Amino acid sequence: MTTFTVLARSSRSAARAGRLTLEHAELETPVFMPVGTQASVKSLSSADVAGLGFRLILANTYHLLLRPGPKVMEELGGIRKFMAWDGAVLTDSGGFQVFSLAKLLKIREEGVRFASHLDGSQLFLTPELAVDMQLALDSDVVMAFDECVRWPADEQYVREATERSFRWTHRSHARFHERRKNANQFFGIVQGGFSEPLRRWSVEQVVALGCDGHAVGGLSVGEPKELGFDTLAATVPLLPEDRPRYLMGVGTLHDIWRAVKLGVDMFDCVLPTRLARHAHVLVPGGHLNLKNATFRSDASPIDPDCRCMTCQSHSRAYLHHLFRAGEVAALRLATLHNLWVYARFMESVRQAVREDRLDELDPSRARCATVPDSPGAVK
Amino acid sequence: MTTFTVLARSSRSAARAGRLTLEHAELETPVFMPVGTQASVKSLSSADVAGLGFRLILANTYHLLLRPGPKVMEELGGIRKFMAWDGAVLTDSGGFQVFSLAKLLKIREEGVRFASHLDGSQLFLTPELAVDMQLALDSDVVMAFDECVRWPADEQYVREATERSFRWTHRSHARFHERRKNANQFFGIVQGGFSEPLRRWSVEQVVALGCDGHAVGGLSVGEPKELGFDTLAATVPLLPEDRPRYLMGVGTLHDIWRAVKLGVDMFDCVLPTRLARHAHVLVPGGHLNLKNATFRSDASPIDPDCRCMTCQSHSRAYLHHLFRAGEVAALRLATLHNLWVYARFMESVRQAVREDRLDELDPSRARCATVPDSPGAVK
Repeated sequence: MTTFTVLARSSRSAARAGRLTLEHAELETPVFMPVGTQASVKSLSSADVAGLGFRLILANTYHLLLRPGPKVMEELGGIRKFMAWDGAVLTDSGGFQVFSLAKLLKIREEGVRFASHLDGSQLFLTPELAVDMQLALDSDVVMAFDECVRWPADEQYVREATERSFRWTHRSHARFHERRKNANQFFGIVQGGFSEPLRRWSVEQVVALGCDGHAVGGLSVGEPKELGFDTLAATVPLLPEDRPRYLMGVGTLHDIWRAVKLGVDMFDCVLPTRLARHAHVLVPGGHLNLKNATFRSDASPIDPDCRCMTCQSHSRAYLHHLFRAGEVAALRLATLHNLWVYARFMESVRQAVREDRLDELDPSRARCATVPDSPGAVK
Repeated sequence: MTTFTVLARSSRSAARAGRLTLEHAELETPVFMPVGTQASVKSLSSADVAGLGFRLILANTYHLLLRPGPKVMEELGGIRKFMAWDGAVLTDSGGFQVFSLAKLLKIREEGVRFASHLDGSQLFLTPELAVDMQLALDSDVVMAFDECVRWPADEQYVREATERSFRWTHRSHARFHERRKNANQFFGIVQGGFSEPLRRWSVEQVVALGCDGHAVGGLSVGEPKELGFDTLAATVPLLPEDRPRYLMGVGTLHDIWRAVKLGVDMFDCVLPTRLARHAHVLVPGGHLNLKNATFRSDASPIDPDCRCMTCQSHSRAYLHHLFRAGEVAALRLATLHNLWVYARFMESVRQAVREDRLDELDPSRARCATVPDSPGAVK
């Protein structure tokens, strides 16, 4: 099922602007997905997220498997109904969290035994269960179950993990096609660490399965940034042109800009929401720590040229006070600002690709000043 | 300055419906004020509070004196500009918090020495400073500085405190008229514990000052509920008919209904916001604890007949999940519901007084089902 159309290409890079049709949203790419780990983009309501112009969010299968669990999710008709989210949802497979958040007990060919980070209870996660859970969530995009190896890692281990990840991807793909009910899509994930031959092998295997899109996994796992981008630059050209390419867990606006130039179409990252909860808000050239005493009586908004709800109403002094006073309202107001900046930046990226001037777009000066001509989605 | 007009009276009780004009809002009474302790109605933005239909909130002089302090507040043009609140603000004098929250060090005729609950720093609060701070906040309604004696208390102490409170009220009143700049109003506070003669004495003294409104203080301080209502019933008839009457710190919907029947016009209470933060949401007949496992897969809204933003979008199951998962979005969604219930209940109270059927209004069945014909304010 081809639901992705490239509408414009950069003449000076591999960047492209496209349209991606999912079951519950039609999106313009490159697109950024806010992360709704536990069926909640932290600090916001679903209406808030829609109001920022997002039509696609990411949710975490691992967290939702533990709580509220597949039974509740199925009874309630999937994650979109559960969280009253009118847009589309992409779910990761849980692999990343099992290997980073849970207490890992045993990796076997069949799957992974781990202890829940919530209550220590033991679970066994397999590609089949990961897909079943994502189908219980009725995710628009189901991701393959795989292992994300951290850097540095032993070469032999990376090879074994990459091969096993592909076998899990193969099983995920088979389960998906056996059990899917609606117009869900399936994305394979390319692994291979920082080895060019392993990445090439992984791409060949995953692409041969026939996936609706392809993710590049295993980057931003502790490696030096340039090593990650070198690997990305070597991997993306191997992926089919006619399917969306998704770089998992990246990143800053600058990282996104660089990855778009390498031909990436989709992104997710906890950075804007996490920064906001720590009182860090994005401004052209960097970010401000609103807890800093310098903002105590600063009557200006976070960014005088920003048109987000927070900047339209509130001063740095008020936000400083709310953070200092421990008022939870601060978390939402800062998150609304940071995600607004991301949403507007992605609009400017799309526009720059269409006008073939992506190199001129300086992400370090990225502002949220423009009125959204397109709210990040066609419908 | 008389800015209060009684528009309707109950034939079977002392209840009345009126209109109160403050500098920044024209309000219908009886009215409930959400509490914005630290210049934030907890979990909500100022836009949220306005969206619920409130036009008057209460803020705490004690908290704002400690943080951000009078200097910042003056520099930023008062609390309304500070928190981007378009409506009116009533500020308590700080007396209640000094006697309940701070470490009280010494009560003297001049004022009260206390240690900040934030950092232990010592401050000396006087009636003059309390009024100056409220004028720095540019409060619509400045409250007299007084002592709120907890129950039970020694009779002699209550007498001394009541007399001292009146002297402080006298000084507050003098300072207010010396320093006021805008159309701020001044409310005196009647004390006197649970002694009818002391209450009568306090009313006579305070009323003689010529205040814009009168508050009944020193109730809900640990006494048996009926003792409080007996004292209220004996006190309210002594207050002038043509000025608003404000019962401080009360209470449940049922308490408010009873007090309205005794002739009270204004209320504030942290109950609806505090309950919400503990996952307790109001429903006809009581409240639900959303953390209860019984709601795990309950697809119905908090109250199927409620038209609040939360009930229009979200299920009990989702809210249960958010509270269990520790997602802060839960606090805002529950608070929006509880304050919506209060706002709509006050509308139904006003309507019932106008239609002379207040006795028929059963607060234990109070619903938030009605569409707000009046959003709790004329302008």
